[in-house]
Amino acid sequence: MLVALAGGVGAARFLRGLARVLPPTEITAVVNVGDDTELHGLRISPDLDTVLYTLAGAINAETGWGLTGETWTVMEALEKLGGLTWFRLGDKDLATHFFRTQRLAEGETLSEVTRQLTRAWGVDVHLVPVSDDPVRTRLQLVGGPEIAFQEYFVRLHHDVAVSGVRFDQAESARPAPGVLDAMATASSIVVCPSNPVVSIGPILAVPGISEVLAARREQIVAISPIVAGAALKGPADRLLTELGFESSVVGVARWYASWVGTLVIDEADAALAPAVEGEGIRCIVAPTIMSTVERAASLAQTVLDTHGD
Amino acid sequence: MLVALAGGVGAARFLRGLARVLPPTEITAVVNVGDDTELHGLRISPDLDTVLYTLAGAINAETGWGLTGETWTVMEALEKLGGLTWFRLGDKDLATHFFRTQRLAEGETLSEVTRQLTRAWGVDVHLVPVSDDPVRTRLQLVGGPEIAFQEYFVRLHHDVAVSGVRFDQAESARPAPGVLDAMATASSIVVCPSNPVVSIGPILAVPGISEVLAARREQIVAISPIVAGAALKGPADRLLTELGFESSVVGVARWYASWVGTLVIDEADAALAPAVEGEGIRCIVAPTIMSTVERAASLAQTVLDTHGD
Repeated sequence: MLVALAGGVGAARFLRGLARVLPPTEITAVVNVGDDTELHGLRISPDLDTVLYTLAGAINAETGWGLTGETWTVMEALEKLGGLTWFRLGDKDLATHFFRTQRLAEGETLSEVTRQLTRAWGVDVHLVPVSDDPVRTRLQLVGGPEIAFQEYFVRLHHDVAVSGVRFDQAESARPAPGVLDAMATASSIVVCPSNPVVSIGPILAVPGISEVLAARREQIVAISPIVAGAALKGPADRLLTELGFESSVVGVARWYASWVGTLVIDEADAALAPAVEGEGIRCIVAPTIMSTVERAASLAQTVLDTHGD
Repeated sequence: MLVALAGGVGAARFLRGLARVLPPTEITAVVNVGDDTELHGLRISPDLDTVLYTLAGAINAETGWGLTGETWTVMEALEKLGGLTWFRLGDKDLATHFFRTQRLAEGETLSEVTRQLTRAWGVDVHLVPVSDDPVRTRLQLVGGPEIAFQEYFVRLHHDVAVSGVRFDQAESARPAPGVLDAMATASSIVVCPSNPVVSIGPILAVPGISEVLAARREQIVAISPIVAGAALKGPADRLLTELGFESSVVGVARWYASWVGTLVIDEADAALAPAVEGEGIRCIVAPTIMSTVERAASLAQTVLDTHGD
């Protein structure tokens, strides 16, 4: 069994490739819930949904989020009423949030509901939220208030300076059933090319997770989400810099070195491999841009081969 | 100022007629919230919405609920997931519930949100929920459990025997701001042709309402929702019988006699006028079937004229 720590788009693309080179039933993706939010009374889990829709082959490939062939009737009507529409929710996508919200209200857990959704979508990868309890990423703006993740990410287009990040309620969150066991017994653990700060960070913030991972350092491989100094998507580059790290594979290596044994960096950063190893982390150079599912599968194979060493 | 006590479809049709013969700004409709429910995390107020959509000229005239030209993308997608779909919510209609739920979550009251919605829809009649606090109609099934109103009305198509009705949480509900004043000072108070048990009942169950109404008996006119022994829509006939009253204008008269001074009955029931008056309630015979807005306006005029006496 392989365990992957996953955020949103980058993780979803990697997992789709991984599911080409490993039987999907042998993959457990432990997914960030720090991005989760409540809007209009609906329980929204953006990272779980992005991974689910991508694995189901239903993701909107252009935006990287939401469903392909989506319609926007509800949002358009809500706009006319003067409602809250900065977080766009497509009509078909809404069914997922309705399903989740109703089941949670009936007392089921987020991991149970996620299992039902993966079954409904015909996805065989095990998707598990890192916790069934709330963990909410919050960002302290420079000279401004602390705001919720989606306000930062969607409403403000992550175009504001951040001085700190914290994971609200993480200290009282428990790992979802099976998460610690899966991590403790996995043949290897992959840290997907997700934002180290706000996608992988909330996973580590759940008590018990980092302790288990610390004992598995040699089995842990991360893929750098930073290529040639920049994030392929989202604010990973900016956040690393703002929190005092470099926006480079070396900054990623430094961020991860205490618990990750191997870092896969893109060929564009090959010259930095010695500096990465200087951080005490083994470095693998490979093509990491997942522009097609074949390239994602090839990257996944590289990661699997790493562990043959 | 005229006050109308309102349930759903029958009340909505009457109010649309009334707004033709009185300036809409001089009408305050105090609307039942006993039908309100939460589904998928959404706060749904069916009677408020039916009245709103009807007054806005946007109601689906065939069904009597929901919006005209509606689409069902969300429900269809939810059905595929195996979600809860017995309560049908159209895509455009959902915007209303999103708006309401979000604003309530932000701390606004149901009456404030209702005012915003009426403004957004360009409706000038004052729509006021009887209470900003929850009141939840529950029905005791014969030989079965007690169930929530929408389970009875929609899921079971009110096709089950009922032995009792109660209005959960009514005892701790407070009348919405302005409701008692409007009732105390109205030139006349109309009880719309709504279900006496489950539409008008929850309004009376809010502490303070029936005390104010008791002092206004001579100004109160009700329109019978029972015509020729049957409800035009819904289970009013059945419920009256099950609770020990006749399903007739005489049964309605008996149900209302303690606080209603005048009952308008349909021409089809003209022969029962003496029996109605035998219940101690003044009786007016008029056409009450509101098959067009003109007929509704004509009925409204009859009600207004009654008060000229």
